[in-house]
Amino acid sequence: MNIDSLQFAHRFNGISGSAIREIFKLLAVPGMISFAGGNPSPDSLPGEKVGELAKVLLTEKGKILLQYGATEGYAPLKESLVPYLKDRFSICCVESEILPVTGSTQAMDLLCKALINPGDKVVVENPTFLGNMQCLNLYQAHLIPVDSDDEGIDVDHLEEVFKTEHPKMLYIIPTFQNPTGRTLSLERRKRIAALASKYGVIVAEDDPYRDLRYTGTELPSIKSFDTEGWVAFMGSFSKVISPGLRVGYLVAHPALLRKCTIGKQSSDVHTALINQAVVDQYLRQDLLMPHVQSICKAYGEKMETMLQMLSKCGGVARYTRPEGGLFIFCELEKDRDATALLKKAVDQGVAYVPGTHFYANGGHHNTFRLNFSMPSVEQIKTGMEKLSCVFSE
Amino acid sequence: MNIDSLQFAHRFNGISGSAIREIFKLLAVPGMISFAGGNPSPDSLPGEKVGELAKVLLTEKGKILLQYGATEGYAPLKESLVPYLKDRFSICCVESEILPVTGSTQAMDLLCKALINPGDKVVVENPTFLGNMQCLNLYQAHLIPVDSDDEGIDVDHLEEVFKTEHPKMLYIIPTFQNPTGRTLSLERRKRIAALASKYGVIVAEDDPYRDLRYTGTELPSIKSFDTEGWVAFMGSFSKVISPGLRVGYLVAHPALLRKCTIGKQSSDVHTALINQAVVDQYLRQDLLMPHVQSICKAYGEKMETMLQMLSKCGGVARYTRPEGGLFIFCELEKDRDATALLKKAVDQGVAYVPGTHFYANGGHHNTFRLNFSMPSVEQIKTGMEKLSCVFSE
Repeated sequence: MNIDSLQFAHRFNGISGSAIREIFKLLAVPGMISFAGGNPSPDSLPGEKVGELAKVLLTEKGKILLQYGATEGYAPLKESLVPYLKDRFSICCVESEILPVTGSTQAMDLLCKALINPGDKVVVENPTFLGNMQCLNLYQAHLIPVDSDDEGIDVDHLEEVFKTEHPKMLYIIPTFQNPTGRTLSLERRKRIAALASKYGVIVAEDDPYRDLRYTGTELPSIKSFDTEGWVAFMGSFSKVISPGLRVGYLVAHPALLRKCTIGKQSSDVHTALINQAVVDQYLRQDLLMPHVQSICKAYGEKMETMLQMLSKCGGVARYTRPEGGLFIFCELEKDRDATALLKKAVDQGVAYVPGTHFYANGGHHNTFRLNFSMPSVEQIKTGMEKLSCVFSE
Repeated sequence: MNIDSLQFAHRFNGISGSAIREIFKLLAVPGMISFAGGNPSPDSLPGEKVGELAKVLLTEKGKILLQYGATEGYAPLKESLVPYLKDRFSICCVESEILPVTGSTQAMDLLCKALINPGDKVVVENPTFLGNMQCLNLYQAHLIPVDSDDEGIDVDHLEEVFKTEHPKMLYIIPTFQNPTGRTLSLERRKRIAALASKYGVIVAEDDPYRDLRYTGTELPSIKSFDTEGWVAFMGSFSKVISPGLRVGYLVAHPALLRKCTIGKQSSDVHTALINQAVVDQYLRQDLLMPHVQSICKAYGEKMETMLQMLSKCGGVARYTRPEGGLFIFCELEKDRDATALLKKAVDQGVAYVPGTHFYANGGHHNTFRLNFSMPSVEQIKTGMEKLSCVFSE
């Protein structure tokens, strides 16, 4: 029988793969200035340090680190995460509420595995991170987008949706949101924790950018205001140590975490141990925050440069002014099409991501997302001049 | 609202977690001799070598290996896998038919994600690896067990099931099967490849133990007889380098592999790069086969010791005689209960896994699985004497 007759699972109906990851493939042209990714700067990646740590760890503890590990995670890392979560996110938890995962993408996958039946309603910010929208779509969730303003998601509208639609979950990126760069205000954080508990909705709080703050004041996580256990917190070391290591973590109520752990048994058994152990050393030896400070210095300068260039960029009608993170979100005039213009931009040697991909229902063709962490300051200046030309035509 | 009111997804109905991984937790007693796991011997884990490789790789290529990578996998590893697959498994394929994954457990998860709708029928060997049965159960597959004999699965019965039940998939471990240690004969391998194509059934061929052969002659994989693309081959480096690294791979028809790759985007984005790069070095520098030879020497001696002890073990009515792998499967007399006896065995300081967990429909309470890779030769002698006492009572 010809393999063309093979039927794939219904969950793939309408799924065509991450638009961003497809755009990445077009960027392999030498000299291309890319504002399209969400990658850390190559300069921020501590190859030598991680190499040293890995060698010492594997020499001293190779019999443990190369063996099978517990699905529940590498115990020393969990021990180190408790004070880190308290200090950085105001989250008070114990080790049994923490599950190290293979990048925080896996945390989202496990939450969906534990909770989502086909057709279940999930509220997402409008716009939001498309990778996790794809995850939700593969679990056949019914997405309900709720608009946001400069203080983050519209909580009055959110309560209305909680009340009338009875969603299973809210997926939210509260700090330096992807793609907008916006940060949810303190009042709204408190209110969302309260609404979750009032209406019985799981909040999947995705906070990978938090440590990348260049101006303004830190805010506690939504999870820190959670008294009943309705908030699940997803953290990542991809933006502050290395994405290539694939280490993140999930903090959740033990009953929910147990289902996620069972789900992880048949996802990948456990997260690679040497990778967990390297992150543990970053926390245990107090290597993380000095490293983060050096990253923030460089990224802050890049963000400032990009904001300055945007202020004089032709064709750009509006843009966000983040206090940290990796992204700025921009609008052209209403009648313009950022997807059509991308082709012209790529011809000129500069790339971005059209904003339409970040909206659950598409549209918003005049928007686009810029990343400033990956390019150098010089590339930001040159690239933004090129964009200004393309948009001014 | 109290979190106790939280409803989990239907896929968790009846799922309680891996029985084996729960048994492992009971084995933390000092001095316990465990025949329960499927772990490599600690002596076989190359901590120093992996540490050296990791340091060199991260120092020289840290900017690449710590950055985000392609979901499709680390290109040098895929390049190295092509000749390895040809040489070791008689599989002729190109790089675009290979997907590195986070342990071969993820390969199974991705195949299910790509193919299985709730209620789809999947044929499994009776008994088979319970971890992947749990994976199938979480995708709400309807399992159809087919018995096996000393030459592996009963192919006449299998054809009957293919013809009458129209299953979506066959899950099979052809070499040194888990839990039986049996190897599928050459004729049956050819016939299964032909049946898959004739009836349009995907064969998920799981072959992690193949390189661990201590006697007898190597056989080509089922995949090597696949002409149409119905066989998907799952490989692993967990048993021959390290399970803690979590590196395996999937070889499949490009159309199927594409769906698996899209599924992997939202599972964990990509497999950790340094882990892929270490495995690549094992292949590229010809480190793997000499390492495998040293493992086989030690494991072969352990298997022989265990088979000798079994030949004089009280209460054991029957056992398999594998030519490699990690496991021997045993039967007590029909009326005895290996689960009840496990408690007595653990009290005596020795553990195994009751065989009932490996049967899709349970039963077979008089069976149990023994692992010989993890304990030392001395522990095998002592532990089997203890078991003989327990079973003779």
